[in-house]
Amino acid sequence: MRYFVKTFTTMARISESTIRRLSHYYRVLEEVEAEGGRLISSHRLAEREGITSAQVRKDLSTFGSFGRRGLGYSVAHLREEIRSILGLDRRWRVGVVGAGNIGAALLAYRGFARQGFDVVAAFDRDPARIGGRLGDLVVHDVSQLPALAPELRLDMGVIATPVRAAQEVADLLVKAGVRGILNFAPRKLFVPAVVTLRNVDMTVELESLSFTLAQRRRVRRRNRSD
Amino acid sequence: MRYFVKTFTTMARISESTIRRLSHYYRVLEEVEAEGGRLISSHRLAEREGITSAQVRKDLSTFGSFGRRGLGYSVAHLREEIRSILGLDRRWRVGVVGAGNIGAALLAYRGFARQGFDVVAAFDRDPARIGGRLGDLVVHDVSQLPALAPELRLDMGVIATPVRAAQEVADLLVKAGVRGILNFAPRKLFVPAVVTLRNVDMTVELESLSFTLAQRRRVRRRNRSD
Repeated sequence: MRYFVKTFTTMARISESTIRRLSHYYRVLEEVEAEGGRLISSHRLAEREGITSAQVRKDLSTFGSFGRRGLGYSVAHLREEIRSILGLDRRWRVGVVGAGNIGAALLAYRGFARQGFDVVAAFDRDPARIGGRLGDLVVHDVSQLPALAPELRLDMGVIATPVRAAQEVADLLVKAGVRGILNFAPRKLFVPAVVTLRNVDMTVELESLSFTLAQRRRVRRRNRSD
Repeated sequence: MRYFVKTFTTMARISESTIRRLSHYYRVLEEVEAEGGRLISSHRLAEREGITSAQVRKDLSTFGSFGRRGLGYSVAHLREEIRSILGLDRRWRVGVVGAGNIGAALLAYRGFARQGFDVVAAFDRDPARIGGRLGDLVVHDVSQLPALAPELRLDMGVIATPVRAAQEVADLLVKAGVRGILNFAPRKLFVPAVVTLRNVDMTVELESLSFTLAQRRRVRRRNRSD
């Protein structure tokens, strides 16, 4: 595993945008492999993602030398390497806090388990939900999180609660030893540097869409009345 | 409505990150209003979002002069103004393509309708889903989209299909006259400049989390074996 050699020294230099592109390359490789492709050029990897082939080569060289000049990359090999770099070659134990629609959608989403994410526990603070079921899981009282955490060995926590509760839940997860958090609440959360936080904010994307559409409409209206 | 005066001239200057911050201010104002607050300082708006109060004042002054020096902003008034700026004071007609888990979660999500987004049509290309129901809606064959579009008067389209179908669906929506697209498929999509595209990419966020956790684990392992 060539990239291991580089892991230690380059850790600080790998930007979030490089990781995002790796994630996209991975999906392109999966697709090309499914279509029976065996070799892929940096040019083709770039083309599908709308970036330059130089960027692709630069990104991949951060982790090792995977390609052969003039031949391109082996699809299967590169896919396996990126899979391992992204940590998708192992299982992650995930706890979901908030047993509402988002929690239910996550549990129902097969891609989640296929990528290595196993939801092993669900929590809520609504007495109407506690003791009920989310998929195959019994919903625990969120106040039990610290007590249950050692046994659950959670790698990641998903925050799928209303906005108001989000920071409090983040604090609980951090105290419980969780080092990766995926936050669906539309609120900036604060976590210690040792914890990695990623946000999925549908609300902000939607409002940014409606802003643009409303703005266009106003401009049209204004132009008509001029 | 003071900001109308500025709408036309400032359109090009409003960055995506300003809109994102407006979206966050809006939620803070909703919260403060619910707690009974009547005035809010730029300092407090900043504090909650982890930015500077100068940035808050700059953002808001882009749209008009809402505050009074030394007094701060009227919570109700500023909330209403931002609501209007974000286009949340009207209803948007939304078509969802892909009647799977994401589509179902969107329809079940009450916040979606509360913010002004009405899902008025659902489409899929799976014969097993066509004619079935998604919430209160009958699922149409996606090939009917161009024919049904004029009658549906769609403002926005949501792409909640598998990755492979996403670009094709985007092309269909554009042809059908939709000018705003929210894409949930983890794939870069290409649309004409006249169409606004926003992405909600849970997969990329998750893989970026697992990358960081895996990387840490490797470093720990390496340190132990040194």
